[in-house]
Amino acid sequence: MRAAVKTKPAFGSIEIKKVDIPQIKPDEVLVKMKIASICGTDMHIYEWDPWSQNRIKTPLIQGHEWAAEVAEVGSACTWAKVGDYVSGEGHIACGHCYQCRTGNAHVCNSVTILGIDRPGSFAEYMAVPEKNLIKNEPGLPPEYASIQDPLGNAVYTVFNGDCVAKDVAVFGLGPIGLMAVAICRHIGSKRVFAVGHKNEYRVKLAKKLGVTRAIRSAEEDPVKAIMDGTDGMGVDEALEMSGSGEALNQAIQVLKPAGNIQILGIYGKPPTVNISEFVTKGGAMYGIHGRRMFEDWYRMAGLFRSGIDLMPVITHKFPLDDIAEAMELMRSGDCGKVALYP
Amino acid sequence: MRAAVKTKPAFGSIEIKKVDIPQIKPDEVLVKMKIASICGTDMHIYEWDPWSQNRIKTPLIQGHEWAAEVAEVGSACTWAKVGDYVSGEGHIACGHCYQCRTGNAHVCNSVTILGIDRPGSFAEYMAVPEKNLIKNEPGLPPEYASIQDPLGNAVYTVFNGDCVAKDVAVFGLGPIGLMAVAICRHIGSKRVFAVGHKNEYRVKLAKKLGVTRAIRSAEEDPVKAIMDGTDGMGVDEALEMSGSGEALNQAIQVLKPAGNIQILGIYGKPPTVNISEFVTKGGAMYGIHGRRMFEDWYRMAGLFRSGIDLMPVITHKFPLDDIAEAMELMRSGDCGKVALYP
Amino acid sequence: MRAAVKTKPAFGSIEIKKVDIPQIKPDEVLVKMKIASICGTDMHIYEWDPWSQNRIKTPLIQGHEWAAEVAEVGSACTWAKVGDYVSGEGHIACGHCYQCRTGNAHVCNSVTILGIDRPGSFAEYMAVPEKNLIKNEPGLPPEYASIQDPLGNAVYTVFNGDCVAKDVAVFGLGPIGLMAVAICRHIGSKRVFAVGHKNEYRVKLAKKLGVTRAIRSAEEDPVKAIMDGTDGMGVDEALEMSGSGEALNQAIQVLKPAGNIQILGIYGKPPTVNISEFVTKGGAMYGIHGRRMFEDWYRMAGLFRSGIDLMPVITHKFPLDDIAEAMELMRSGDCGKVALYP
Amino acid sequence: MRAAVKTKPAFGSIEIKKVDIPQIKPDEVLVKMKIASICGTDMHIYEWDPWSQNRIKTPLIQGHEWAAEVAEVGSACTWAKVGDYVSGEGHIACGHCYQCRTGNAHVCNSVTILGIDRPGSFAEYMAVPEKNLIKNEPGLPPEYASIQDPLGNAVYTVFNGDCVAKDVAVFGLGPIGLMAVAICRHIGSKRVFAVGHKNEYRVKLAKKLGVTRAIRSAEEDPVKAIMDGTDGMGVDEALEMSGSGEALNQAIQVLKPAGNIQILGIYGKPPTVNISEFVTKGGAMYGIHGRRMFEDWYRMAGLFRSGIDLMPVITHKFPLDDIAEAMELMRSGDCGKVALYP
Repeated sequence: MRAAVKTKPAFGSIEIKKVDIPQIKPDEVLVKMKIASICGTDMHIYEWDPWSQNRIKTPLIQGHEWAAEVAEVGSACTWAKVGDYVSGEGHIACGHCYQCRTGNAHVCNSVTILGIDRPGSFAEYMAVPEKNLIKNEPGLPPEYASIQDPLGNAVYTVFNGDCVAKDVAVFGLGPIGLMAVAICRHIGSKRVFAVGHKNEYRVKLAKKLGVTRAIRSAEEDPVKAIMDGTDGMGVDEALEMSGSGEALNQAIQVLKPAGNIQILGIYGKPPTVNISEFVTKGGAMYGIHGRRMFEDWYRMAGLFRSGIDLMPVITHKFPLDDIAEAMELMRSGDCGKVALYP
Repeated sequence: MRAAVKTKPAFGSIEIKKVDIPQIKPDEVLVKMKIASICGTDMHIYEWDPWSQNRIKTPLIQGHEWAAEVAEVGSACTWAKVGDYVSGEGHIACGHCYQCRTGNAHVCNSVTILGIDRPGSFAEYMAVPEKNLIKNEPGLPPEYASIQDPLGNAVYTVFNGDCVAKDVAVFGLGPIGLMAVAICRHIGSKRVFAVGHKNEYRVKLAKKLGVTRAIRSAEEDPVKAIMDGTDGMGVDEALEMSGSGEALNQAIQVLKPAGNIQILGIYGKPPTVNISEFVTKGGAMYGIHGRRMFEDWYRMAGLFRSGIDLMPVITHKFPLDDIAEAMELMRSGDCGKVALYP
Repeated sequence: MRAAVKTKPAFGSIEIKKVDIPQIKPDEVLVKMKIASICGTDMHIYEWDPWSQNRIKTPLIQGHEWAAEVAEVGSACTWAKVGDYVSGEGHIACGHCYQCRTGNAHVCNSVTILGIDRPGSFAEYMAVPEKNLIKNEPGLPPEYASIQDPLGNAVYTVFNGDCVAKDVAVFGLGPIGLMAVAICRHIGSKRVFAVGHKNEYRVKLAKKLGVTRAIRSAEEDPVKAIMDGTDGMGVDEALEMSGSGEALNQAIQVLKPAGNIQILGIYGKPPTVNISEFVTKGGAMYGIHGRRMFEDWYRMAGLFRSGIDLMPVITHKFPLDDIAEAMELMRSGDCGKVALYP
Repeated sequence: MRAAVKTKPAFGSIEIKKVDIPQIKPDEVLVKMKIASICGTDMHIYEWDPWSQNRIKTPLIQGHEWAAEVAEVGSACTWAKVGDYVSGEGHIACGHCYQCRTGNAHVCNSVTILGIDRPGSFAEYMAVPEKNLIKNEPGLPPEYASIQDPLGNAVYTVFNGDCVAKDVAVFGLGPIGLMAVAICRHIGSKRVFAVGHKNEYRVKLAKKLGVTRAIRSAEEDPVKAIMDGTDGMGVDEALEMSGSGEALNQAIQVLKPAGNIQILGIYGKPPTVNISEFVTKGGAMYGIHGRRMFEDWYRMAGLFRSGIDLMPVITHKFPLDDIAEAMELMRSGDCGKVALYP
């Protein structure tokens, strides 16, 4: 089969190659890819950043966002059928640690991740455990089906708080931040403030999604803008999706007393945080990692069914063969979600 | 001032009369009515049902759904100002019982209710404690401002569960049931099943609000319809707003295991309930009484701001002088919410 | 091996027999029994009640409460080791239905139960899926290890509410009700009211556990006793563990507004329930089925470690060979939990 | 009356003086003090630290922890009676801001505090709003009644998490930290790890309360000690009650994935926090400010009734006249809670 292979432990180094179709284990299925989309993590691996240097072993077929069809079913599988239209959770949880056994498989103690620790979705075929599959509704556009892994991050972030009919500020307008904005709009948030940093393309995308106010923090003080926009009250829910310590402190500043902060972001170095202000406000802060298995997947099915519009967030489509070009586009920041067609 | 007065302990007996403008206490304000809408409870008092015979003392000015302007402010008030555009909670909680002091003033041990235990809103002026007031947004249509008491019931019912992107069945399509339907549609419920009994007018109203399926239980088995419409899974949230024991058992039957039932309804006599099925499903059942003070009022402000459309639910408008005609319309069931203009 | 076999579809009919040691599947382990205790369900099967007639196929080795040692490990198992001191969840959940995938495996859509749908623990050896095992702390008395299945019911019942430093009423003093009483005492409930019906033995056991008040409802009105004992306030948490409709209505009557009712009980026929009172109080009612997998198991480990005393609840011990005698004792009601030694 | 008056904006400067008995407003009562205990905040005012210099206006009668008898009742009061045995919440909430109206009066937007913004309890008499009173059980020792303000902090901290039958680490062994330890022991926490810094007296007090392990972080790495003591799993609940950034990061390190951190502490300067580790663990962090009004006060009544032993935490008693000596003892750290008798 054709696959995009990260061949060397270095920047770029992604090549389209002929490789063997994966062998499946008894509890796995083989899926034939319809679409694979690119995650920010994939870009980090492309750039070969410090995290990648520690975690990734080349050669590797990356990719963990995908929509596919079941092509072969392992002997110990119990429900998947050839032809099923599926997507799936990228985190393969162990199933027997304390977290897995208490409803927190998203923070499994010994997780394996598709496209990071084992071959992923930037290929014609992929092996994946049956327990990670989700059956998609027949009419679901493959572009939506493919982005459920990051959409699930956004769903977890938004629904871990109480955003319906409440004031919300989203810090960070990468694809997941933009999806969070789209969800808040769809479920009837009172006012949505979207805070980007420099990139104009993404602030425009946020405006297109219908936010109350889109703010470029490099140009304008988001704290003042949000406090003014909420009559000095601040927001009920602050979603910190940027990984910037400055944004985290701004989130604390605009937080209404007894409000919540959801953090989906990894910080380059530990930020200095105004914890005293957070405590005095009686706030709550939640670390968002992955997606709840599988509550958030079913929630997505519900959002799709109720008509959420995510098309503005999916801005570019490339054949898998042009993956290097797609990666460079991602690096520029002038895009939303980018889809690859194998 | 002019007021509609229930003059005698008997059916009907509602007359437009000249009465004194109420005197306010230090902690009260006097409000000048813009609109008062009619609650089902008002109809029960009009009909002089057994509950009314026990609770109501005539003469009484009824009415507890209203939008008004502050006309006079008591000496011990702290924030209200003449000219404020206000509505207010009809339940005057004592403030010092266990429930009031633990966030449950909606089930205060010694509540007094506007228009039931003291003069209400079917008049040009009304006295109301400042602590019960809510300031409305300047641009809020008075029709919306007026219906916040029953809308608050619907908000409590819907938000006590988890209806966003989930399957919901609403049993009972009186005005509050219809409002619940409108909310579910606005916040992105996955599928909404609306179950009325015989009345065609209200089932048509539910259809107008865009439900997945509107069902007249006198004509069609709602259990079969809902199970079919959810691929045999049942609903995540069942809202029992009819006060019918049969509907409550249907709610249990269509409940997905681990689902929730919200009950806003009073039953003529204690129903026989299939508790074993409810237990085996690991369900939860919540009694909804009044509105959470004042969480649900702020939630309404958020829904209004995010653009909820409730106009289809407000079907009729009358001058206060025609209140008897309005009551007869309510009795027919061929209406949604009915507004009175003093 | 020796096993107690229900040989015929009739009352009693339990015989000690020589049978083959079970064969294990790849994902199962074989365990060598230390203790098996008797559940109320086992007594129903012994009595061959209507439920048993529908569900049970003879011959059957009953039993789903047990403590054992791993004797053999299947080829696909991942963590169990020969010699491990284990107990286990009796409900074998399918793992892939909606409930199983959303943290509600205790209400799995297609559960199989040890000792009911497949051979159980009234034997020297039993096969059990590895995923159902819990490793016990080395020093845990086998009597405690064995009763974790019913103790888990009690833990779910108590911890689904908020019983610490709150007033609690327990209706029904079977072994699980008594365990709930012991837990409430251990975790610092404010006052604990224990309501039995006729049986004096169990009311005495409740007293031994240190309740505020033990009440025989056949002798004394529990509503009056509890209202008097709470200065007319009622209880925060009512645990209905009797399966009596009368008790359920008493639970509603003694419920403080905004309080919770936990129902662990199956009703012979659907009870007539004062739902209006429940609704007006703004109460919540929860159906308790099984035990949360595996939150409640870990909670039990914590209770054991913090020194909970359950010994008074384990009143009798028999060799497995005397199982018929043990069943007859259970039928008399003059016992707490009964342990069998194979 | 006699009162301890902070006379000048400087270190110490606390003098016993004759002053007028306070005049009460219509909604206030006058209370005659039985005991007033000393809060850490009182010591900061004694030391005249930067916070005090900004907030406090001298002359001031400090004190907000107290047990008293009602001596006079204002004309607008509704339930208090002369002779009532009372204590009370020190935070006088405004009652009409968003927080006050949504169950979060503990983070009221315009709070006034007894003994900080108005005369407090280090005196024979004090005026206090009726709405802040709590009636104590007749038999409650005045020493317990007096410490409910800080005990309420501890109750909020412990009960905002889920500490029953779970592993808990308490960082910071001031009087409130020690009370948290005592509560965890009383309600059956699985294992309790108590982490102090240098002070030996308080680590010994923690041991006396029966912790699993008491650690002086100046002598021993608490992270290693706690990880070893939990088989490498970490704790379910970390209570950061020290105000040290180092302790906060240790709390993150010992946190089990999906665990909770409660922060009751104010940090001298914003700490550098390993937020990425917190996020990757999917943790939750809560700012604890004051006490929930009045849920936590009722919870305390329940703890008292269920027999919690807090006597080891109340280590010293002084006549009010010796307040300066008591303050110096507090400064040494070689004490638990210190009570003053007027």
